[in-house]
Amino acid sequence: MRKRMMLTVAYDGTNYHGWQIQPNGITIESELNGALSTLFGEPIKVSGASRTDTGVHSLGNLAVFDVDTRMPAEKISYALNQRLPADIRIQASREVPLDFHPRHCNSRKTYRYQILNSEFPLPTLRLYSYFVYTPLNIVHMQCAAAYLIGEHDFQSFCSADSTAETTVRTIYHICVEQKENVISIVVTGSGFLYNMVRIIAGTLIEIGKGRREPDEMTTILEACSRKAAGPTAPACGLTLLGIYLEPEPAALV
Amino acid sequence: MRKRMMLTVAYDGTNYHGWQIQPNGITIESELNGALSTLFGEPIKVSGASRTDTGVHSLGNLAVFDVDTRMPAEKISYALNQRLPADIRIQASREVPLDFHPRHCNSRKTYRYQILNSEFPLPTLRLYSYFVYTPLNIVHMQCAAAYLIGEHDFQSFCSADSTAETTVRTIYHICVEQKENVISIVVTGSGFLYNMVRIIAGTLIEIGKGRREPDEMTTILEACSRKAAGPTAPACGLTLLGIYLEPEPAALV
Repeated sequence: MRKRMMLTVAYDGTNYHGWQIQPNGITIESELNGALSTLFGEPIKVSGASRTDTGVHSLGNLAVFDVDTRMPAEKISYALNQRLPADIRIQASREVPLDFHPRHCNSRKTYRYQILNSEFPLPTLRLYSYFVYTPLNIVHMQCAAAYLIGEHDFQSFCSADSTAETTVRTIYHICVEQKENVISIVVTGSGFLYNMVRIIAGTLIEIGKGRREPDEMTTILEACSRKAAGPTAPACGLTLLGIYLEPEPAALV
Repeated sequence: MRKRMMLTVAYDGTNYHGWQIQPNGITIESELNGALSTLFGEPIKVSGASRTDTGVHSLGNLAVFDVDTRMPAEKISYALNQRLPADIRIQASREVPLDFHPRHCNSRKTYRYQILNSEFPLPTLRLYSYFVYTPLNIVHMQCAAAYLIGEHDFQSFCSADSTAETTVRTIYHICVEQKENVISIVVTGSGFLYNMVRIIAGTLIEIGKGRREPDEMTTILEACSRKAAGPTAPACGLTLLGIYLEPEPAALV
């Protein structure tokens, strides 16, 4: 009997051309398909919740696939991890209803953008943060971030080559935290446009540098133009922390 | 005029055969010598404070070298970073007295051993932590660690192939902290024997797993035999956080 399984997938995106299968270059999706097809002895294709970009990391992306197997759902994570490279690790596997897809249900996604704000780069953080030499004014960044909370047209924070039907999204929560010389922007929303978190980060960094005032966020939002916002911050600073489904898919017995 | 310069060196040890020059394989020392010799146009050799092992990381190792230059000491860090690979970054450069050496003065060194204690490995932590599947009892680890504070003969926590004259060392401070599923052992001492922190970590992990009782630390110390302690935990979990000189070398004007 055909079953649908859902995986929680963590990865270090450094060595991948993003999530989605590409004609050239390995991707998280192609590695998962390969490992699953080997494990179950038939061609299997996953479908992911978030198609993260080249170099973006994840602690908990979601993906579903269909398979006819007697292997208990929760054992799949262990079996799969033995067939995956060390920079991809399944954190959970469970069965979900056959018509369930994490991209077609209500969900909240949380991303973290990490900045190393110091005089010199730190080698052990180089793959997971964006190094900014100029001292950042974190209070200005916090003020500016607050303007983004709520439902807005985020067209100014969307890459020009996006194909999204609507650019209206809701940000439920955003905070800018500092721990020693690491500044983290943590943002939770109903979904994000292409490059949205990286453009938010790039804009907040400009504000932190004092090149723009915090209240310019209003003007940037109202402009509905990519040119109004700051640059797209580099991918390595971005990590998808998790995806929270509402409601959680029913447990299958 | 010949001057002595001191560097604070951070590195990701993953791709290096440790600090010390080896006949085969690149090391932190060889990379520093190469970059300095290029920068100053003469053969230069550094001398390090801590000869960290293959795969061990550092936020602040110290090294000195002598050079005849008019370049301001504090500019050397910037010039050198442009000639070093991204996984080595100088954090500070300063001039010190010509007879000063960080290995021949009183100092305190702080190391951190990081453990990921969870059901599944996390790709973004794989290079900087040791993954332990078995749930660890952190209270037992904290109790056991307390026995190590003070001056002791640490022969049981010293690799058999050490050439140290004495195995007596002082641990000023040790703590075992937990943040979500990451357990950190942070230890400050007057100096450490070969593999000492990794053997302490390996022993504390055995205690955390319940294979030994916390008060066995007394017996292990008294045994003065490497066989009494636990295994040497893997290098990737270890980071030299910093070296604190007492007193700091006098400022040169």
